[in-house]
Amino acid sequence: MAISSLVLVFLFQLCFTSTTTSLKHPLDPLTPSEITQIKHIIHNSHLGQFSSSSNISFHYLDLEEPEKADVIQWLSSTKRSELSLLPRRAKVVVQARDLIHEIIVDLSAGYIVSDQVYTGYGYPSFTFEELYQTTKLPAKYPKFKLSIQKRSLNLSDVFCLPLTAGWFGERTKKRSLKVVCYYQQGTNNIYARPIEGISMLVDVKLMQITEYLDRFRVPVPQAQGTSFHSSPHRNKSQQKNHGFDIDGSIVQWGDWSFHVGFNSRAGLIISTASIYDQQKGKSRSVLYKGYVSETFVPYMDPTTEWYFRTYLDVGEYGFGQSANTLEPLVDCPANAKYLDRYLVRADGEPYKVPGIICIFERYTGDVSWRHTQISMPGRVIREVSEEVNLVVRIVSTVGNYDYIQDWEFKRTGSIKVGVGLTGILQMKATSYTNIDQITEDIYGTLVAENTIAINHDHFITYYLDLDIDGAENSFVKSKMEKKRVPKHMQSPRKSYWTVTRETAETEAEARIRLGMDPVGLLVVNPNKKTNVGNIVGYRLVPGSSGSSLLSDDDYPQIRAAYTKYQVWATAYNKSERWAGGLFTDQSHGDDGLAVWSSRNRTIKNKDIVLWYTVVLHHIPYQEDFPVMPTLHSGFELRPANFFELNPLLKN
Amino acid sequence: MAISSLVLVFLFQLCFTSTTTSLKHPLDPLTPSEITQIKHIIHNSHLGQFSSSSNISFHYLDLEEPEKADVIQWLSSTKRSELSLLPRRAKVVVQARDLIHEIIVDLSAGYIVSDQVYTGYGYPSFTFEELYQTTKLPAKYPKFKLSIQKRSLNLSDVFCLPLTAGWFGERTKKRSLKVVCYYQQGTNNIYARPIEGISMLVDVKLMQITEYLDRFRVPVPQAQGTSFHSSPHRNKSQQKNHGFDIDGSIVQWGDWSFHVGFNSRAGLIISTASIYDQQKGKSRSVLYKGYVSETFVPYMDPTTEWYFRTYLDVGEYGFGQSANTLEPLVDCPANAKYLDRYLVRADGEPYKVPGIICIFERYTGDVSWRHTQISMPGRVIREVSEEVNLVVRIVSTVGNYDYIQDWEFKRTGSIKVGVGLTGILQMKATSYTNIDQITEDIYGTLVAENTIAINHDHFITYYLDLDIDGAENSFVKSKMEKKRVPKHMQSPRKSYWTVTRETAETEAEARIRLGMDPVGLLVVNPNKKTNVGNIVGYRLVPGSSGSSLLSDDDYPQIRAAYTKYQVWATAYNKSERWAGGLFTDQSHGDDGLAVWSSRNRTIKNKDIVLWYTVVLHHIPYQEDFPVMPTLHSGFELRPANFFELNPLLKN
Repeated sequence: MAISSLVLVFLFQLCFTSTTTSLKHPLDPLTPSEITQIKHIIHNSHLGQFSSSSNISFHYLDLEEPEKADVIQWLSSTKRSELSLLPRRAKVVVQARDLIHEIIVDLSAGYIVSDQVYTGYGYPSFTFEELYQTTKLPAKYPKFKLSIQKRSLNLSDVFCLPLTAGWFGERTKKRSLKVVCYYQQGTNNIYARPIEGISMLVDVKLMQITEYLDRFRVPVPQAQGTSFHSSPHRNKSQQKNHGFDIDGSIVQWGDWSFHVGFNSRAGLIISTASIYDQQKGKSRSVLYKGYVSETFVPYMDPTTEWYFRTYLDVGEYGFGQSANTLEPLVDCPANAKYLDRYLVRADGEPYKVPGIICIFERYTGDVSWRHTQISMPGRVIREVSEEVNLVVRIVSTVGNYDYIQDWEFKRTGSIKVGVGLTGILQMKATSYTNIDQITEDIYGTLVAENTIAINHDHFITYYLDLDIDGAENSFVKSKMEKKRVPKHMQSPRKSYWTVTRETAETEAEARIRLGMDPVGLLVVNPNKKTNVGNIVGYRLVPGSSGSSLLSDDDYPQIRAAYTKYQVWATAYNKSERWAGGLFTDQSHGDDGLAVWSSRNRTIKNKDIVLWYTVVLHHIPYQEDFPVMPTLHSGFELRPANFFELNPLLKN
Repeated sequence: MAISSLVLVFLFQLCFTSTTTSLKHPLDPLTPSEITQIKHIIHNSHLGQFSSSSNISFHYLDLEEPEKADVIQWLSSTKRSELSLLPRRAKVVVQARDLIHEIIVDLSAGYIVSDQVYTGYGYPSFTFEELYQTTKLPAKYPKFKLSIQKRSLNLSDVFCLPLTAGWFGERTKKRSLKVVCYYQQGTNNIYARPIEGISMLVDVKLMQITEYLDRFRVPVPQAQGTSFHSSPHRNKSQQKNHGFDIDGSIVQWGDWSFHVGFNSRAGLIISTASIYDQQKGKSRSVLYKGYVSETFVPYMDPTTEWYFRTYLDVGEYGFGQSANTLEPLVDCPANAKYLDRYLVRADGEPYKVPGIICIFERYTGDVSWRHTQISMPGRVIREVSEEVNLVVRIVSTVGNYDYIQDWEFKRTGSIKVGVGLTGILQMKATSYTNIDQITEDIYGTLVAENTIAINHDHFITYYLDLDIDGAENSFVKSKMEKKRVPKHMQSPRKSYWTVTRETAETEAEARIRLGMDPVGLLVVNPNKKTNVGNIVGYRLVPGSSGSSLLSDDDYPQIRAAYTKYQVWATAYNKSERWAGGLFTDQSHGDDGLAVWSSRNRTIKNKDIVLWYTVVLHHIPYQEDFPVMPTLHSGFELRPANFFELNPLLKN
């Protein structure tokens, strides 16, 4: 005992010295030498005296932070070397002789300052050792061996996982784990081949299976292509043609092919986008056409000089007409390719706007998919694939605002549509220089002396003529509905949600206000199914939600009546293109999306158009002055049972 | 007439020839030679015969697309050279002798195939010429000159903008524009110095000001620093230290300074984040601490083998404990720097996980702000700034799922918190091989033969101890409320929305379900104001919304009661860290966020903690099999009257 005490003192000195020199901040995590010090302090305490050190298991160990006030004082101190004056403590949760101890160790003093035995509900997380031992129990358990035998499986190819058990009203207090098992033949994906029908409960203290149930047998899934291997990292410098090919206005990139159109009103138009399905060996249509159809920007100041500021930017000014020559290296990155387009003067003469569209591969810095398989000791698999997308961009400056439009194609089959708002707020002069002077509604924010930035909205409405694997499509609402578990199931669970699918028969059933109930919105092709029978489709993943707050009888709202709903689906009609009507300036609302939809045409298994509106209610802040940092929003069109499996995996 | 006909035939031949050779796709925009051809066809038609060519103004000109069915047939055709067989037509809107004509020109045939005079409401967009002439009217208008003189401004420094007028029930039918004017002294920002109080209406046909009103005078704003100039483009190769400095765990990047902490439960912890305010010349605190506090993942299958799968991943497994060594070049980009951290074995021994955190500058390919000033002829200003952010990343693999956590710092003062979900779905074996066989609820999607991916949720809850410019903060709801314009205002507008701010007095007033009503959520420092008197704050910009659909009396919901609300604010208490309670495994819900909040402590002008939950209801699709493409979500903490002006502008 004397010797070990001496060793401890030596270690303590060593650790303490090495610790203080490497610390830079009072919230620095525990260092390895501090952790070792903690272990020795605990083993050498009353806990170690009454149990062998192998019976103390460490479940949690973390810095016990100094008081927040002390940290803040340290931060503002000029003599940060005084760090050593802040107490260095650790919070430790150990299990010793079946009791859970919450311990505070003072590292500077070298002893336990507080030790509380926890007797409430709940347990600390499991140690890796406990989890690992649990997975080895089934293979030795006779009933499980019989279950495997009855399923004609090889026990040596069975791999089991420990799962936390939850709490379902049981009155017994016992550390438990559930165990589920998988079959390992023919895949590196341990989750792909579950052995269903078996329930096992492990008493972790006894390290024994204490409950066993084999209710039914179903086949172990044999799906092919479940192994995962990432493609080799692409070498950017080896790329030709910026990573994509362009022939006229037709872009080919990866499995994607689409046409980059343009006109003075919408600006950028993406047409005839299709994706080559490697499994089916053919190209499949996704989007016949997509573009910004209208943009409604009502300001919220009803006074004489401001009430009329309720712009329909696309119809009144034109996103193409207002588009700029892009600035290389900043509007688009170095690897971008630029396209010229033509606009027309009032006298009918064409003029060229050089570099009005750019196309580039975006190295997002994100991961397109990954998995680390650590559950099988000695067989760690780490497969990661970086995300590289293709972006088509245009920037339109409509007066004070700059709209950045991105159509971003992903290798997953997704099309991510982004919109960035920047430029300059519309500002109003005022006699006020401080908000203390203000007692009336100023309809906005005092962003500088004598300057109010007025509250306003942006409703950016997209025309999306999706043709999912052909022109005849349906619009489906996939509703998540809360269910009570029926008594006869005798489940410890009381509730869950399930999915109810509703196909819109007519246009009236396809007007959606988002944000109320959880719902998935899909455009599907009811005539095409996957091999297992799912209807192929694409899903709308919405961005910022909302609807117009203006009264229905207000003139700007009559003109932009379509902003009452965020999603619409209409029957395809070649002339129905501009949500706010064709002749938008000073319009009366008698043309446009709301009028067309009011015909309530049937849209089931028809050529249909989806309309989606990105909504930004803009309360200005001083940071938006004098130039706004870009406000990003958008939405995504994501394949939903369109492919047989993840198209990123090319086996 | 004979000669011009000959010229036209010549031009027609020329254009037709050059057109067909350059077209690649039936939706290709009109070429310059096609546009010139259209102009000549129209000038040479009945329209040109009855009006001089200078009286025909072109308001809109676009490809009149072939029928969709023909385009789709062309796409699937192997002989795409047959493009020339598709009709090449243009839709043109011109004004001639005060009438609006909608014209279809057939370019192949060389003549107008349809001409309709539009007599409905609404007008085509204005030509640049009309807009430009309108801006020149005020300077010549005696009443306006008097208004400028009364304001002691120089007329030569006044610049005017034409604004569309909208429709507010007027019965007269007249093309009109409103004009508003700005003062140009001392700034390149034409919107910064509005001349308020003047209303002008221009009759565009007469090109005259027909209505004029000067209601009141207020000072023209004199705010400094309104000019915008972007910083020079950064040369990536000149950067040292990956663009940031790190000393121990303290990172310095741009004006940001923060501490990168770590523990076995939360994984990554961002502490003591502050930003240097160049205007105030001092560092200001933003976030005392932020990390993932809990992650609730309930599966929606109540059967015997599945009902218990209702994980609390952080408390039961630990995001730090489950974090991986990152894979260079794919988990993080080439310019990343990697940090090692230590974890603890059950016996108390530390072990190193190398490269468990990475830090890198993300070149997003986005624009952080821009503006093109085209309104002043001959003085085009284009200022653009590329977006470069700093990302701190950790990846935790909890069994089958991989969670990618990003803390992304922006030069705007924003902190964008991202979470990516990838890895492998939990799958269930079944006897079904096609959905035609299924008549019961299978609680998920048949993703492959014999394989069901079960419906589930992810609730990722963040602990956000914001200290906005000091520890004493308040939680504010900034509600957008619809208002009826009062009759006495005599405004043509009937409605608008305005902002009502409510400060939460106690914890009960700070429980928020998102998605119902438009509301801004802020943490403010009521003791600090900007120069013009706004209370400094930060704003929560939420990501995907939702709340738990489980019944309140269901055991998993009792344990994760905090998922009923997406936002909470609580009084700071050092021990209140884990939303699902400290001892989470088999917990009974008697510890955690919902319990602490039920004390209903006062939180006004106190040290408070904001809790935000990212919600993903996950209906699986076949594309999620066998490995999921990354599903991204997150939220942003954005300065809201924290700075005097946009911090990107450093004058």
